[in-house]
Amino acid sequence: MQESDGAGAGTLPVPGPTLGVVGGGQLGRMLGEAAGPLGVELVVSDPTPDCPARSVVRDQVVGDFDDYETLRELAERADVLTFEIELADPDTLDRVSEETGTPVHPAPETLRTIQDKYVQKEALADRGIPVPAYRRVDTVEDLLAAGDDLGWPLMLKARRGGYDGRGNVPVEGPDGAEAAMDAVAGPAMAEEMLDFERELAVMGLRGAGERDTFPVTETIHREEILRESISPARAADGVRARAQEVADEVLDAMDGRGAFGIELFQVDPDDYDGEAILVNEIAPRPHNSGHWTIEGCLTSQFENHVRAVLGWPLGATDRRAPAANANLLGDVEENRPAELRGADRVLEADGAALHWYCKREARPLRKLGHVTQVGTDGDDVGELLERVRGLRDATTCRPE
Amino acid sequence: MQESDGAGAGTLPVPGPTLGVVGGGQLGRMLGEAAGPLGVELVVSDPTPDCPARSVVRDQVVGDFDDYETLRELAERADVLTFEIELADPDTLDRVSEETGTPVHPAPETLRTIQDKYVQKEALADRGIPVPAYRRVDTVEDLLAAGDDLGWPLMLKARRGGYDGRGNVPVEGPDGAEAAMDAVAGPAMAEEMLDFERELAVMGLRGAGERDTFPVTETIHREEILRESISPARAADGVRARAQEVADEVLDAMDGRGAFGIELFQVDPDDYDGEAILVNEIAPRPHNSGHWTIEGCLTSQFENHVRAVLGWPLGATDRRAPAANANLLGDVEENRPAELRGADRVLEADGAALHWYCKREARPLRKLGHVTQVGTDGDDVGELLERVRGLRDATTCRPE
Repeated sequence: MQESDGAGAGTLPVPGPTLGVVGGGQLGRMLGEAAGPLGVELVVSDPTPDCPARSVVRDQVVGDFDDYETLRELAERADVLTFEIELADPDTLDRVSEETGTPVHPAPETLRTIQDKYVQKEALADRGIPVPAYRRVDTVEDLLAAGDDLGWPLMLKARRGGYDGRGNVPVEGPDGAEAAMDAVAGPAMAEEMLDFERELAVMGLRGAGERDTFPVTETIHREEILRESISPARAADGVRARAQEVADEVLDAMDGRGAFGIELFQVDPDDYDGEAILVNEIAPRPHNSGHWTIEGCLTSQFENHVRAVLGWPLGATDRRAPAANANLLGDVEENRPAELRGADRVLEADGAALHWYCKREARPLRKLGHVTQVGTDGDDVGELLERVRGLRDATTCRPE
Repeated sequence: MQESDGAGAGTLPVPGPTLGVVGGGQLGRMLGEAAGPLGVELVVSDPTPDCPARSVVRDQVVGDFDDYETLRELAERADVLTFEIELADPDTLDRVSEETGTPVHPAPETLRTIQDKYVQKEALADRGIPVPAYRRVDTVEDLLAAGDDLGWPLMLKARRGGYDGRGNVPVEGPDGAEAAMDAVAGPAMAEEMLDFERELAVMGLRGAGERDTFPVTETIHREEILRESISPARAADGVRARAQEVADEVLDAMDGRGAFGIELFQVDPDDYDGEAILVNEIAPRPHNSGHWTIEGCLTSQFENHVRAVLGWPLGATDRRAPAANANLLGDVEENRPAELRGADRVLEADGAALHWYCKREARPLRKLGHVTQVGTDGDDVGELLERVRGLRDATTCRPE
């Protein structure tokens, strides 16, 4: 079991091993919560002093995600480096890894590919992985040509830096092309506007010589922000099997170890050359669509990310029970100190788990926490979804 | 929901609330792991620098469990004070609570009662709660008289300070009385030697105006140290119901909020005046017999202790699946740096959860971690017990 480039799992020493995590937001926090029972320590780096992860991990190095000194210190203090945010700089990660001998997982090269949505799509398409039709767009002329090819309306996406729908601009027709290019403000790609049946996601795992996927999640977005996730997904068995299959192909295209969030569209095969699943985007880290695995699976995506990057055996991904998850988003008009009113409603609900990320500031639609409602075998997942929506709606971070 | 003496759950602020915990061993560590998702911060106090809880909580105050300055600082930094070790000093807790206005849960008075095994037994017996026959023993003469009353052999217990069987001395007959008194070295009590069928335990919860118990646990000791815990307990339904009933009576005898570990003996009612359950001992804190609730129940004993002492709603205690737990004890002849060899065997097992407490030093029979094996509904708990024993036996902290 002793991994040559990891901390090894044959023998657990005290203290450590230490995982250095670039990013100390909610994902870093939940990684810390998952690492504790395993005896794994975390040091995170984040530009925000006292970031959300801080109070549940060993230490924080305060500094930007691409700051050399910060990442260098992190690498020196860690047995393995990883990241919970795509803003981690792959060049700096490569450099500090080489200088210190501390391995980085997943591979910075994979992060580099994923950071650029166009390069990401190319990498998938080159391997024959089904993706929506797309075009590279650098100019208004490119966008108009893409519209001719793909049809209007289409979706214009900034190639870099977008998340939670930021950087995604729907374009109705040629008249909107110039404004859309102004909005993305840089290199972009156009994607056909899909008439999808539902959105799905699969959390995939690459360990040391092993591979696994979690049960398929159905994700529900509004204004391009993930609102709810449920599992099992309400898709036919064959569709779910196809989603797992495509996720396996995506994992093959990745380098290094860790958890990968694989966002998918379920489409009508009659409209898409017989294909029911198209890949939307990949995140080389634990992902919001997998938060339900904390209570819902034998081993969570967070624990499995920790195990994977350390080169330890992966834990079983079996679903223990149907689960529904709802994000607690900042329901405020403007920034204000964060608080959660109505938390008692969540705490009182049998089988509901509250996760409050301890972000200091509530901002409009900012992810501040989540609630997961688990059921028991045979429970209707649609009913669990209604229950978790009710719990979410009973809370607010608006002032009284 | 706003509690007058707690932090209240109607509204969750950021940061905090902060829970001050006297003791930062494995129980403090698991309290910290449970508090994280709720957005609750922990500060622990412990005499050992970098105690096991340290790396998963906000901060540690280094100092003895009865040190005024230490507990005063803890009280100043916390919204609510609690303890994870009976060595916490009730007088000092009362004093710092009064000085700072920070409430303490459970009540120091209850801790005071429980710290003295004779006073504890008296408090239970006075309320008509079934306990083994016992006598106060201050001298060899008292012990000989107790033997006449209770019969030989009997169990001599130091009134204070014993744990994991330390301070418990079986006495075969009058000839052993003097040596036994020397061994306990202080005020003691004698208890009839029970011919019990099995040992059981119930984790009880006292919240703000509510009460609950976890499903009954069967506990298996060897050399008076808990080795394994399983739930459901392999006792008849009526016996389990009686255990819950007795646990409820015990909870009535306690003051303040929190989790209580209630250790029980199951005896043959024909031999004990028709009574199937006798109370052995109570711990006013999360307890080793409830570790399986982390994976086995909807809400763990640790999360429920956090909720209870804060005056928040208690979480559902339902068992999600049969579970078996085995302690990882120091299997060394003498003290040495702790490490866990064979951890990969545990990590590879489906449905097994590893908890490694990060104690620096392995000592003979010291609790260094535990493994919980969960099954699925209908699984035979005896089979789970064999599996978790196999996992435990595959690990060692002996050097190669």
